[in-house]
Amino acid sequence: MKGLRLEDGELRFVPDLPPPDLPPDEALVRVLIAGICNTDLELARGYYPFAGVPGHEFVGVVERLGADVSAAEASRLVGKRVVGEINAVCGACRACLSGLEAHCEKRTVLGISGRDGAFAELLTLPAPNLHRLPDVLSTEAAVFTEPLAAALGIQEQVPIGPSDRVLVVGAGKLGMLIAKTLARTGCDLTVVTRSGASLPEPLRARGAAVCLEEDIENAGFDVAVECTGNPAGFVIARRALRPRGTLVLKSTYAGRLEVDASALVVDEITVIGSRCGPFAPALRVLEEGGVDVTPLVAARYPLEEGAAAFEHASRPGVLKVLLEIGGE
Amino acid sequence: MKGLRLEDGELRFVPDLPPPDLPPDEALVRVLIAGICNTDLELARGYYPFAGVPGHEFVGVVERLGADVSAAEASRLVGKRVVGEINAVCGACRACLSGLEAHCEKRTVLGISGRDGAFAELLTLPAPNLHRLPDVLSTEAAVFTEPLAAALGIQEQVPIGPSDRVLVVGAGKLGMLIAKTLARTGCDLTVVTRSGASLPEPLRARGAAVCLEEDIENAGFDVAVECTGNPAGFVIARRALRPRGTLVLKSTYAGRLEVDASALVVDEITVIGSRCGPFAPALRVLEEGGVDVTPLVAARYPLEEGAAAFEHASRPGVLKVLLEIGGE
Repeated sequence: MKGLRLEDGELRFVPDLPPPDLPPDEALVRVLIAGICNTDLELARGYYPFAGVPGHEFVGVVERLGADVSAAEASRLVGKRVVGEINAVCGACRACLSGLEAHCEKRTVLGISGRDGAFAELLTLPAPNLHRLPDVLSTEAAVFTEPLAAALGIQEQVPIGPSDRVLVVGAGKLGMLIAKTLARTGCDLTVVTRSGASLPEPLRARGAAVCLEEDIENAGFDVAVECTGNPAGFVIARRALRPRGTLVLKSTYAGRLEVDASALVVDEITVIGSRCGPFAPALRVLEEGGVDVTPLVAARYPLEEGAAAFEHASRPGVLKVLLEIGGE
Repeated sequence: MKGLRLEDGELRFVPDLPPPDLPPDEALVRVLIAGICNTDLELARGYYPFAGVPGHEFVGVVERLGADVSAAEASRLVGKRVVGEINAVCGACRACLSGLEAHCEKRTVLGISGRDGAFAELLTLPAPNLHRLPDVLSTEAAVFTEPLAAALGIQEQVPIGPSDRVLVVGAGKLGMLIAKTLARTGCDLTVVTRSGASLPEPLRARGAAVCLEEDIENAGFDVAVECTGNPAGFVIARRALRPRGTLVLKSTYAGRLEVDASALVVDEITVIGSRCGPFAPALRVLEEGGVDVTPLVAARYPLEEGAAAFEHASRPGVLKVLLEIGGE
């Protein structure tokens, strides 16, 4: 099969990758489309050790199921368009048994850790990871399910209501998606950008404002969501908070972060790491059109031009770059 | 008056400090006894800029009140034994008006910031800061009100119940006080110590266990409270947590702390800074004998030997050192 392969920090298109073996409890999925995420860019830069096919945001069609998958699952899935939760879990460890499956101690993660991902014609995932798409939902919108779920995950960890003043630091692809989900809470929302570029109309229509870094100091926000993944973004988010405010870390960081821990104690700040989120609500939000994701698409590339797609996705200010992999 | 004075990182006994001016809305308090806290040791080491009389844990007797204090307050306070909340606040800023008085933007803090403290014969504080002591409560126990309030503050920020596995990192004076308050929640409590020294009987009787640093890795605690104020303590607390666990920072840190922020995101850890706490519940707990603080007293010194008292308090493993300042 065709696919992109990452090894020793080098990303290559490979025309003849061996197709994945199908474990008995998994589904073989033919990928239609996949999105490039910052984590993919960081993997390609060698920030995290991973060799294999990257990619974890995808829409595909279930081709066939392993021998142990039930007939009920088969009739639910085969031939259907699906998205997939990216953590493949054991179901038996301490984390799984306490309801924290996304933190399974033995997990593999699609295209990130221990498992080939979505930037290829075929992938496998455990059958329970797959969610069928509503017919009304376009494939292009559905490819945002995983990052939209991650954005919604914030609200599972931090209660955000209409009286909260919330700052989103970073207007990239993740920041914009988070801003769009947070706007639905009715909160008083501000997005900080480097350039002061204005926000897209749907966010402005919901009352979201934009501001520059220099306007943030001591602004007394209740919650700040750091989406840039760089230390400067952390500092902006930290400075923006009121005492007892909450800083949501929503991006991975290359290397270590230097923190003024005494100031966190004195101001009694909460810093909360946030990674994945729930797929079912993300699909509901997409189906009802609650978050319009298609304006976030910056470009589409065929799989063969994966390296160019990565280069495009890594340019400052570029939103979502998609890889078109299979036809429907 | 007699007092200790800190200037340019040097602590001296001064026999003839000028007595404090009494502002119209404050109370003049004759100090009976005062406790040395790690913050005092850090001030004396020059970690934070402060020149003046240090000390913020005290019991005193109200000598007289400023001209603007009401007659009702006067009858409540004059001649009575009191403890005092350490943040003197404006009542009018954004923090005060939102119920976060301890974070007042214009606050001074007794013996820490902008206000002379308790290591002298006299101090002043706003009258509303003062809490009368129940007659049954000894002066020596009452001097623990402020640190006990700080320990109880954890439970105002993080719900801790009988099913929670909680680790206290550091068995110093603050760690022991925190362990004693947490034990009252019925939680499954462990204290990590460098030496593996056993815990005092009342904690063991409540089922608290002790463990060594090397037993902590991947132990899956729900909550870890870092009381050491050093980066090694932070690492121990971090490693002890389960995914989605909570790390309470309960100590100030000299310098900056290096944090693996990506790991906080991947494991979805919450880090929460915690400083002051509520005096009224601390006094209730002391009055009912719920936390026995007197075994924490390591030594008593007269004010004249303040430098020796500080030296004693800074030795590893030494618990609370008290300064005896006035007679009752």
